[in-house]
Amino acid sequence: MFEAIGFIAAILTTISFIPQAIKTIKTKNTESISLTMYLVFTVGVLLWLVYGIYIRDWALLLANGFTAIFSIIILSFKIISVRKDYQISKSK
Amino acid sequence: MFEAIGFIAAILTTISFIPQAIKTIKTKNTESISLTMYLVFTVGVLLWLVYGIYIRDWALLLANGFTAIFSIIILSFKIISVRKDYQISKSK
Repeated sequence: MFEAIGFIAAILTTISFIPQAIKTIKTKNTESISLTMYLVFTVGVLLWLVYGIYIRDWALLLANGFTAIFSIIILSFKIISVRKDYQISKSK
Repeated sequence: MFEAIGFIAAILTTISFIPQAIKTIKTKNTESISLTMYLVFTVGVLLWLVYGIYIRDWALLLANGFTAIFSIIILSFKIISVRKDYQISKSK
């Protein structure tokens, strides 16, 4: 029973980034999203992925590979937005 | 060496929510943050916590307890903002 809780926990924390990625793609609004969070989080998830490959834990690998995709999407939109704001402020 | 990668990965994904929580507290702006993401993520992290207590894995417990605090802070600000928007739209 408790193994199921761990399994559900892993699925929930993994899929939770999907609605954020969808919202970000749809609205292209990343104003209230923290750049630092997604930079640190993405590096962390990619390190989890490396670790998962090393210990050959396919669940760890799959979960973090999946999360990495959505985290990178959100991070990319944030970086594009930050760059745009910087160029606008420079041209003023 | 690869154990260190797992350790650094865990620390990065755990602390990444701190800058988002600080940004949210400071600006009170949650417009581009997904309510669904933080609902699903918070439930997931709390289930990880339950699982960590059950298998007596203190690292899992500590990491998820820590993440839960910041995730709940961000979620609370988002819920307050959604409620406010609902009341404004109702009064129109």
